[in-house]
Amino acid sequence: MTDTFLNDLRAAIGSAHVITDPDRLIAATHESRGRWQGEAIALLRPGTTAEVAACVKLCAAHSVAITPQGGNTGLVGGGVPFGGVVLSLGRLNRIRAVDALNSTLTVEAGCTLAEVQTAAAEAGRLFPLSLASEGSCTIGGNLSTNAGGTAVLRYGNTRDLTLGIEAVLPDGRILNLLSALRKDNTGYALKDLLIGAEGTLGIITACVVKLFPAPLSRATAFAGLKTPEDALATFDILRRRAGEHLVAFEYLERFGIEIVTTHLPGARDPLETAHPAYALIELTSADGSAGLNARLEEALSEAMEAGLVEDAVIANSEGQRAALWSLRESMSEMQKYEGASIKHDIAVPVSRVAEFVTRGKALCEALLPGLRPCPFGHFGDGNLHFNLTRPRDMSDEEFLALYPQFNQAVHDLVAEMNGSISAEHGIGLAKREELPRYKDPVALALCTTLKRAIDPQNIMNPGKVLNL
Amino acid sequence: MTDTFLNDLRAAIGSAHVITDPDRLIAATHESRGRWQGEAIALLRPGTTAEVAACVKLCAAHSVAITPQGGNTGLVGGGVPFGGVVLSLGRLNRIRAVDALNSTLTVEAGCTLAEVQTAAAEAGRLFPLSLASEGSCTIGGNLSTNAGGTAVLRYGNTRDLTLGIEAVLPDGRILNLLSALRKDNTGYALKDLLIGAEGTLGIITACVVKLFPAPLSRATAFAGLKTPEDALATFDILRRRAGEHLVAFEYLERFGIEIVTTHLPGARDPLETAHPAYALIELTSADGSAGLNARLEEALSEAMEAGLVEDAVIANSEGQRAALWSLRESMSEMQKYEGASIKHDIAVPVSRVAEFVTRGKALCEALLPGLRPCPFGHFGDGNLHFNLTRPRDMSDEEFLALYPQFNQAVHDLVAEMNGSISAEHGIGLAKREELPRYKDPVALALCTTLKRAIDPQNIMNPGKVLNL
Repeated sequence: MTDTFLNDLRAAIGSAHVITDPDRLIAATHESRGRWQGEAIALLRPGTTAEVAACVKLCAAHSVAITPQGGNTGLVGGGVPFGGVVLSLGRLNRIRAVDALNSTLTVEAGCTLAEVQTAAAEAGRLFPLSLASEGSCTIGGNLSTNAGGTAVLRYGNTRDLTLGIEAVLPDGRILNLLSALRKDNTGYALKDLLIGAEGTLGIITACVVKLFPAPLSRATAFAGLKTPEDALATFDILRRRAGEHLVAFEYLERFGIEIVTTHLPGARDPLETAHPAYALIELTSADGSAGLNARLEEALSEAMEAGLVEDAVIANSEGQRAALWSLRESMSEMQKYEGASIKHDIAVPVSRVAEFVTRGKALCEALLPGLRPCPFGHFGDGNLHFNLTRPRDMSDEEFLALYPQFNQAVHDLVAEMNGSISAEHGIGLAKREELPRYKDPVALALCTTLKRAIDPQNIMNPGKVLNL
Repeated sequence: MTDTFLNDLRAAIGSAHVITDPDRLIAATHESRGRWQGEAIALLRPGTTAEVAACVKLCAAHSVAITPQGGNTGLVGGGVPFGGVVLSLGRLNRIRAVDALNSTLTVEAGCTLAEVQTAAAEAGRLFPLSLASEGSCTIGGNLSTNAGGTAVLRYGNTRDLTLGIEAVLPDGRILNLLSALRKDNTGYALKDLLIGAEGTLGIITACVVKLFPAPLSRATAFAGLKTPEDALATFDILRRRAGEHLVAFEYLERFGIEIVTTHLPGARDPLETAHPAYALIELTSADGSAGLNARLEEALSEAMEAGLVEDAVIANSEGQRAALWSLRESMSEMQKYEGASIKHDIAVPVSRVAEFVTRGKALCEALLPGLRPCPFGHFGDGNLHFNLTRPRDMSDEEFLALYPQFNQAVHDLVAEMNGSISAEHGIGLAKREELPRYKDPVALALCTTLKRAIDPQNIMNPGKVLNL
């Protein structure tokens, strides 16, 4: 079977694009951090949507599993194959259309996020999705995981930024919902269903994304605070005083700042004294003369007078702004120098995010004295990367053995607070076995019903999200 | 069967709430404008989600069709029953939770839109969904039709405004996705699938909606223009100069203004001379001192210098503002005084909306000399109510006989421009037979697959959206 199958694939998309050499397969079958090592009989690199459809039809005919793959930068193992083929969207990387007046781009799934951002900028517009991996992650992967990032507070998640999609269904049919409309109520929200399905319902091959006026002014502040509760009250002031301009309200703690200033060359604490908690705040406007610095100063003054903000600095150059952001953006990377960490990507209602930080830290510290919690992230969205660094005197291995125990303790707290155990990274393999503990059983059963209806052979990224 | 069935229903929700008196059924079985007259064996008025579930379980056990109904204000016949029972959500009308800090409300499906707006205002926030029927339409109906309205440009459609839902599936199971999270990537977008499904996949019983900072300043202008192309260029200037504040950019034409100023008592043309086209523009800000009038003046000056805007007035009181909006909001109502009209609710990419107006009018006028086109609506969303008033010397009856012919001509043009034949009203019965002509066949087949998987007995609002 395999020989015929591979030969049919070669005939469909060209021999050069059906890769079976084990050495060349490794990059596609191994997760970049080494957490999962999968296997595949071939890596397929179709060049067009029609070729994707041809590949899927052949796989469907032979009941061969397909793992769609973008930049292979996902954090939950969603792109790791366990048998079957890997189908890379890498060659579908054209900007198909730029419509500045409609404020939309039509792009293929294999474009990197950075390429999409650049195409928007060249049209004098902003594509606001922004993630640490933007140079290598693809827009198709962003859609498949409904990626979040640093501008959700103002612009929404990837699903909110997407007007249309083109996709190949598990039987090889091409679904054409590639419209560029702000309003369209003609049938079910198929686009929204495929977005965030992590490649289990079909392969997104292209999309139409929304653009926004390019920001012409920007104000960025770094504030020192006593507690997460004070951060939340400060967020409420910012939202009230700068509502339509507030693009980011990120949270950090002293331990995180110490990690980054210790290990990142050139990084330094922007404030004179140490504070238990910090907020990185950014306003933007499409108006070059919106007076954002003054607005930010006024809001921070109100927060200082209310005893919430202890000290704050406003960036007065692009260099200072970049330095403030690098404190936040280096957090994950710099944590590695302090030893192993156990990570969570949780969300709770914004009104409870401070309570979550306080209770979550206390809970975990009680479980393991000496533990060094490092919560940080998208506080204004109620989304935290609730990371836990091992005690100084514990081995990585010993600490990581506690991963399931901490996950359960943290996720039980999240569930008690009506939160989500995966705010922006997805389920993939990493959280698949936890999902039934936390998801409404009717919702989970309905997901299974939909998966079986759309992919009855269970060949599209099987075993991801749902344990089928 | 019917007796047992009705008695079981009475036992489940109380006799007073199982209405079979034909006189009392009329309001629930007849469409308010008289376009459809349906029939039902009973009107059910459950008071809780558990009672909705009990009703649905009984209907499922007896294979009885269910037509869910909110305010019965829909425009496409989606709430008209053809046999079976009508299930009204009217008694599920509690505001379950107000969380100002999270900027969310949890409300039951039977709350009117106005009640939801009021609850938001009482919490010092804005719920931006706003429609002509807001006093009687329900939030459940808004979700089921993914309603649009006058603030989509800035705040999005109902789906964009909804964070969570609770729903009863066609087999009576309760789906609990009632979370109040900005980010949640734990499985498929079931919420988005049920929103806009027009009650064919289940009954939405409650929802969590997003709130926004209450606007503390507002600027409203009425501008006279020569052409829709000039309106589009003006829109582009407004979006650039007032991006984050622009909440409405509505389009009208001279004929529409004449209708309203002729028939609406007290209405008058706000500009000194007649103009072929008009734009009603509104900016808002959560900042009371945002200088919106100045910003609006500057943008309009730029448009005047560019030869786009011929004349404009900015409202200088709340009364003037209300008078400008009443010109727009009375349009549908006042059109009736000029005789029958053939209506369309279309969307095209914003970049093509002016071209659509020009070509659409020419096309229709060529089909029927003397026809009086009255396009108006949400120009900034690419969404127009492309209404056609009959020639002065033609009977209503003779004109309305041409409904299918005009629908097809207009919708064929929409399709050629990659638009939508239903931007905000839905498919219901009115457009069900047209849908296969315009919808991607794979998308339509996938909608059918989903419907059959979720509602295998086809009892949930059968015959709406899809002809099954």
